[in-house]
Amino acid sequence: MGLFSKPIKTLDDLFVHTLQDIYYAENQITKALPQMIAKATDAQLKQSFELHLQETRNQITRLEKVFQMHGQPVKGVTCQAIDGIISEAQEIMGDVSDKEVLDAAMLSSAQAVEHYEITRYGTLIAFAKQLGRNDCAAVLEENLAEEKATDKKLTMLAEGKVNRMAA
Amino acid sequence: MGLFSKPIKTLDDLFVHTLQDIYYAENQITKALPQMIAKATDAQLKQSFELHLQETRNQITRLEKVFQMHGQPVKGVTCQAIDGIISEAQEIMGDVSDKEVLDAAMLSSAQAVEHYEITRYGTLIAFAKQLGRNDCAAVLEENLAEEKATDKKLTMLAEGKVNRMAA
Repeated sequence: MGLFSKPIKTLDDLFVHTLQDIYYAENQITKALPQMIAKATDAQLKQSFELHLQETRNQITRLEKVFQMHGQPVKGVTCQAIDGIISEAQEIMGDVSDKEVLDAAMLSSAQAVEHYEITRYGTLIAFAKQLGRNDCAAVLEENLAEEKATDKKLTMLAEGKVNRMAA
Repeated sequence: MGLFSKPIKTLDDLFVHTLQDIYYAENQITKALPQMIAKATDAQLKQSFELHLQETRNQITRLEKVFQMHGQPVKGVTCQAIDGIISEAQEIMGDVSDKEVLDAAMLSSAQAVEHYEITRYGTLIAFAKQLGRNDCAAVLEENLAEEKATDKKLTMLAEGKVNRMAA
């Protein structure tokens, strides 16, 4: 939270702050994915990144719906965690010279992104339920289910093919 | 990877780099946890953080063993991801005024840390197996199992008590 942000006094404030955090994160992800799509060699990996970009755009729309349902303006706050995860991904993309090893590195970075989203949605859903906002929780569950499915798909792709090609 | 690091050409290089990344991350976590222990109000949460600090120290020892098994010097590389996750945790700790809400915020931050570790250990284990290093994978599996157990315990604590106290 920055210098001019609202202090967090209640669980409701923390819920809104976490919502702003993941909203910023999802938007940063839509900016990072096109570079990963462009650099992916394996066709299935490229396709997974493309699909996830489309999913991420839908997830942003769902988050906007949750802001609206909760009577809050749609707003992001800088999320240092996702900035760090993406910076690290970009750095390693610049450091890997072999294209199959690059696929394995990008896949690993994508899974770090997925896990950040999984933990944040898990927290948001628990907060929403505690606040009696099962309606918001239900929308957030849709995003969580997609993130978990993407992570699982990436694990299968890594273990079934991408890591073998890189070795 | 910094300016003077070795370029990553093979899956083995990527494995070693990821090992260095998580080694740095685990060490940063041992520096961040004491502050969280000091600030935790709920006795069970405080105890969970204390236990996890001890576990993290054991995990560092296991990582040192993996470096040795793989014939590599024990070394960390700056991990921007964990630095971002910890910075964000510290920032939110400074922004929350109510002590029960602070517990909920710290618990959420701890889960973000756990998920980062879970994804990295998952990747490392897959790389190790692909490289024919099932012995290294077995040691890393011990760390992964602990991280997953900690995350599960934190979820139960959040949903069973900490979030309710914060509401």
